Amino acid sequence: MNTEKIEKSINYHFKNKGLLETALTHTSYANENNVESYEKLEFLGDSILEFLSSKYLYNHYPNLTEGDLTKLRAQVVCEDSLKNVANKHEFYNYILVGKSERANEGNKKVAILADCVEAVIAAIYFDGGLDKAEEFIIENLKEAIQYASQHIGMKDYKTVLQEKLQKNGDVHIEYNIIKEEGPDHDKIFTAEVKCDGKLLAIGKGKSKKMAEMQAAKIALEE
Amino acid sequence: MNTEKIEKSINYHFKNKGLLETALTHTSYANENNVESYEKLEFLGDSILEFLSSKYLYNHYPNLTEGDLTKLRAQVVCEDSLKNVANKHEFYNYILVGKSERANEGNKKVAILADCVEAVIAAIYFDGGLDKAEEFIIENLKEAIQYASQHIGMKDYKTVLQEKLQKNGDVHIEYNIIKEEGPDHDKIFTAEVKCDGKLLAIGKGKSKKMAEMQAAKIALEE
Repeated sequence: MNTEKIEKSINYHFKNKGLLETALTHTSYANENNVESYEKLEFLGDSILEFLSSKYLYNHYPNLTEGDLTKLRAQVVCEDSLKNVANKHEFYNYILVGKSERANEGNKKVAILADCVEAVIAAIYFDGGLDKAEEFIIENLKEAIQYASQHIGMKDYKTVLQEKLQKNGDVHIEYNIIKEEGPDHDKIFTAEVKCDGKLLAIGKGKSKKMAEMQAAKIALEE
Repeated sequence: MNTEKIEKSINYHFKNKGLLETALTHTSYANENNVESYEKLEFLGDSILEFLSSKYLYNHYPNLTEGDLTKLRAQVVCEDSLKNVANKHEFYNYILVGKSERANEGNKKVAILADCVEAVIAAIYFDGGLDKAEEFIIENLKEAIQYASQHIGMKDYKTVLQEKLQKNGDVHIEYNIIKEEGPDHDKIFTAEVKCDGKLLAIGKGKSKKMAEMQAAKIALEE
């Protein structure tokens, strides 16, 4: 396999080209030719992808709740977005598929493409370490993350508000909890958001965070 | 919170004790006291655990198929085995639970214990890096992995055979594919296993690996 073009496209050059070949070898081809398939690399690559995408989301969306982070991760780490990564780098020109598989290639193609992306992640990890796998993942999924975060209706209003207010220079944004009402198990918090000391909005919620998020949302609307 | 005893038990001492406290703070307590809960640490810790346990299995069971590795991982990374880890280190003495939660503590306790183990993994990761998180995971799940690998009926016969034969000194074990029959999409492979040149057994299977595994299994039985 001449892997030069694909290595250029994914912006990673393998010391061990055999690893990349294995990552692109479907079980059908592996069985027919007595070589290793991508399955075990995919097993590991899947978990590397899950970890590093979670780490990225955790660090870049500090104001999202755990529930929203989980939703966002599910939107980003899915067959469909992995298929797009595979197509971007024209994996279909390289994947080795056996004769037995070629007949029903049509309905399995998407799954194979997604599997290969996960396998390539593990291959990069073994060849160049976790940092290189991370570079590949972020480079290729950043867009999908941004798209998902804007389209599944769970905007991080605090981050959006901050970006908007700091567009024309540094400002000081602060959130304060100004009221707590109700019994312990059913409290309502009220938060205010101020910019350079000036009150922008007030929001309520069942947790401190939700109240602040609500305040940011109202400030954005006004 | 006096975290000394728990740190001694898990064999990791935090630079930032607050991280460990957050990892042991249930949402109910967090909401009532306006502090951060373990939820987001758990989100990340879950993916770290998945990655590092997959890596361990990948490296330590080189002859298992991807399907068996996945089964094994599911047996090991589950609520029940995480609960055991939590109990071993007496997490129940430290977990902060709010008044609203204490009423229905009984039915949720197992989930909370498991969540806290995942959150503690992320806390160790942030405080001491991935290597320290890995040490904690392997130290605490090694036994569960060994137990699972022996009890879910998918022994790695090649590894078991090797261990048995090399007990009394170094021997040379080799596997050879000696026959391939049938059409490409439905091939049957025949493998032999030899020890220091002496034939031990012959096995058949739908892939090279399965034939070898079968040969090892028969050699063990004889």
